[in-house]
Amino acid sequence: MTLWEQYAPELLIDLYELTMAESYLKEGMSGEATFSLFVRDYPPRRSYFVASGMEHVAELITGMRFSEASLDYLASTGKLTHDLIVFLREFRFTGTLRALPEGRIFFAQEPILEVTAPIIQGQLLETLIMNVIQLETMIAGKAARCVHAAQGRGLVDFSLRRTHGVDAGVKVARASYLAGFDGTSNVLAGKLYGIPIVGTMAHSYVTSFPSEMDSFLSFARAFPDNTVLLIDTYDTLCGARKAVEVARRMAEQGKVLRAVRLDSGDLVELSREVRRIFVEAGLPEVKILVSGSLDEYGIQKLLDDGAEIDMFAIGTRMGVSADAPYLDIAYKLVEYGGRPVLKLSSGKKTWVGQKQIYRKYDSGGNMREDLLCLLSEEQPEGAEPLLEAIVENGERRRAPESLEAVRKRFAEEWARLPSPYRALDATRKYPVGIGRGLQELEDLVEEDRRNEELGRGC
Amino acid sequence: MTLWEQYAPELLIDLYELTMAESYLKEGMSGEATFSLFVRDYPPRRSYFVASGMEHVAELITGMRFSEASLDYLASTGKLTHDLIVFLREFRFTGTLRALPEGRIFFAQEPILEVTAPIIQGQLLETLIMNVIQLETMIAGKAARCVHAAQGRGLVDFSLRRTHGVDAGVKVARASYLAGFDGTSNVLAGKLYGIPIVGTMAHSYVTSFPSEMDSFLSFARAFPDNTVLLIDTYDTLCGARKAVEVARRMAEQGKVLRAVRLDSGDLVELSREVRRIFVEAGLPEVKILVSGSLDEYGIQKLLDDGAEIDMFAIGTRMGVSADAPYLDIAYKLVEYGGRPVLKLSSGKKTWVGQKQIYRKYDSGGNMREDLLCLLSEEQPEGAEPLLEAIVENGERRRAPESLEAVRKRFAEEWARLPSPYRALDATRKYPVGIGRGLQELEDLVEEDRRNEELGRGC
Repeated sequence: MTLWEQYAPELLIDLYELTMAESYLKEGMSGEATFSLFVRDYPPRRSYFVASGMEHVAELITGMRFSEASLDYLASTGKLTHDLIVFLREFRFTGTLRALPEGRIFFAQEPILEVTAPIIQGQLLETLIMNVIQLETMIAGKAARCVHAAQGRGLVDFSLRRTHGVDAGVKVARASYLAGFDGTSNVLAGKLYGIPIVGTMAHSYVTSFPSEMDSFLSFARAFPDNTVLLIDTYDTLCGARKAVEVARRMAEQGKVLRAVRLDSGDLVELSREVRRIFVEAGLPEVKILVSGSLDEYGIQKLLDDGAEIDMFAIGTRMGVSADAPYLDIAYKLVEYGGRPVLKLSSGKKTWVGQKQIYRKYDSGGNMREDLLCLLSEEQPEGAEPLLEAIVENGERRRAPESLEAVRKRFAEEWARLPSPYRALDATRKYPVGIGRGLQELEDLVEEDRRNEELGRGC
Repeated sequence: MTLWEQYAPELLIDLYELTMAESYLKEGMSGEATFSLFVRDYPPRRSYFVASGMEHVAELITGMRFSEASLDYLASTGKLTHDLIVFLREFRFTGTLRALPEGRIFFAQEPILEVTAPIIQGQLLETLIMNVIQLETMIAGKAARCVHAAQGRGLVDFSLRRTHGVDAGVKVARASYLAGFDGTSNVLAGKLYGIPIVGTMAHSYVTSFPSEMDSFLSFARAFPDNTVLLIDTYDTLCGARKAVEVARRMAEQGKVLRAVRLDSGDLVELSREVRRIFVEAGLPEVKILVSGSLDEYGIQKLLDDGAEIDMFAIGTRMGVSADAPYLDIAYKLVEYGGRPVLKLSSGKKTWVGQKQIYRKYDSGGNMREDLLCLLSEEQPEGAEPLLEAIVENGERRRAPESLEAVRKRFAEEWARLPSPYRALDATRKYPVGIGRGLQELEDLVEEDRRNEELGRGC
């Protein structure tokens, strides 16, 4: 059994969810609760988020059961009562999950999803839901920025070797494809999600042969219809000239050299020189693929500086979202037993109650503003509600969406996002208004909490 | 079946490993290869690394097989020949893994591990090995810095909700415990590795009750022997005064309030005020636990500024290694068929051949310098070899080590690391010398490659 096979979803929790469950059970607190998941604020330079991970969440919460092995472990800790173990043995999610469909663009403070269920259920899912959504949403946003920077050139995900573990590797491949990447080197992601897989050779391949030329010719023999040569092992320009020779020999067999890859050095200068070498050799159709510590900033700089690049292989910096490696995501109780609740902790805002996001478009179909409202408020005229019930009464309301469908949705969303918000160094914040009903309730609850908790001589 | 159960290790590869395997097979290249894994340079402010992940690597490579489902997928891509599929069906790792034992401290350019095996085997393991080692080693180093900053105070891992996926969550809990953390909130990591699990309550718990006081009393009823109260939901100082009242009621039952947790606001000011409240109430023994966006820098600043803290809960920034979210790790072919090999790509140094690291200590037992040598070179007098054969002929040479044993090893290593290298903002680099034999061979191979690959009018 591999380590990953032992990742029982029911144990992917923080202990405090179980201690809280213990107390809820002891106090007879079985009322319905709503938890709201949102990102508090944008990471540096960001101005939008891309919803991703909801399909995984729906699958996990509808299937969650406590195995006997898991229960045995929990009992063995001595931290929990037999009553709780008995309760967990019967655990089924019976609630509702309302969420943004994957691929939708959303903004800070807007709920990505809301879980409504008996309080213990919603509480036990806290960590698992946050873990799944934050990674996939963070990466989808990072990848969308790379796609934007590439201005129509191809992008492939090469990040698996340096993602934070293999779960991240698979999810990065999926989230980046959702956001418009063309493929991944990650074979497992290819199998699981039908993402096109790509790849050619490493430096180790080149160095394993007596000469670089031998390695190129051998590769062309094995893959005559898809020959891509890595040309920087010894010297990029020497490599390019050898690649020209390989292309000539391939032409004799009626084959064409498809592309070369550059992975080091001054990529602006080298890509231009390599292009010149191929053009002068009458091979302008040979594509130039570059890799090496790139993300949206590196792509933008290369293109601004005039690099000759047809396709980018994007690895580490996208795969770990290097300039913003986490989202300030929160999963907060907003209603219990019909009573709206909030915390007052300094600097951390939570909007009470079950909510809906409404989006308004201008006459050209571009996003204009969002309105955050109570679910019970009347739908603003001409506005589109964004949160959909994905799970009801513990069951999925619809079949899982295909990754292709979600990818298409994102492309449509992107086309409707006005350009100021697309910038790599965004300064303008998309307007998210607060509905009157929500604002009034928020103020009321906040005042009540201040009076009750702070008012008595504290 | 959960997503994670589908993480077949044999597919956690980049496609190019299969295309290269295809060519090696076609060319009859079955010679023995050695691949060396190392970190090229230190991330900002670092001056050492902590070896972690070798036990997972040993387990994965000795158990790796291609399932029929995986083979079916590979065949279905149309990118690989039937010959390769037949070859993969019989895949077994038959080689040697020489590695640093987990918990050892090491330095840039030193091999963390070397794999010696028929070239296809070593090549197919590239991505999996890199993925496993880079995450665990990165986090062990980050966690070691947090432990150092905490100056003997307790630390627990609270990061699962914001790690990059669940694989990272489990491995962060393990790597941080290895480096000296006292426990984790991650229940699954507790089960898998026997790490002490800790946790109390969330803001949602407090807000689910009609009043903060109700929530505190309920928690004390459920956990009278381990009551830790989160006091910042509404106002930290009001919360502290209520906690005093709870402690008094608990005293009537012969119980004691163990600790309070602060999660927001000015933690220096608040922790000092909270301490004063408890001391004035005759409860100096109540511990103060803080959480909230902390890593080594935050810990250091709080303590420098005079915060009154007994224990730190460390989440996101440690769990994603926020200030340095990846290591510049490389897995390079250094020998094939008895021939030492290297690439010349600019700015990326690789040391040829099978190697050993030797460590010298001063008379007080402190680390003085390391020497990187060819494995075939004579052992320098009085020096300790660091790389050990963990797998030989495809089988583990010894039983897996317990996490406790590895944690103890790290504590011993740490005691021998001279203080300049321990600094959070390290400027001094630990001396790693190059053995004469290695330097001579490197120069020879480099000259040969320049002559052969660059010399012919390129």
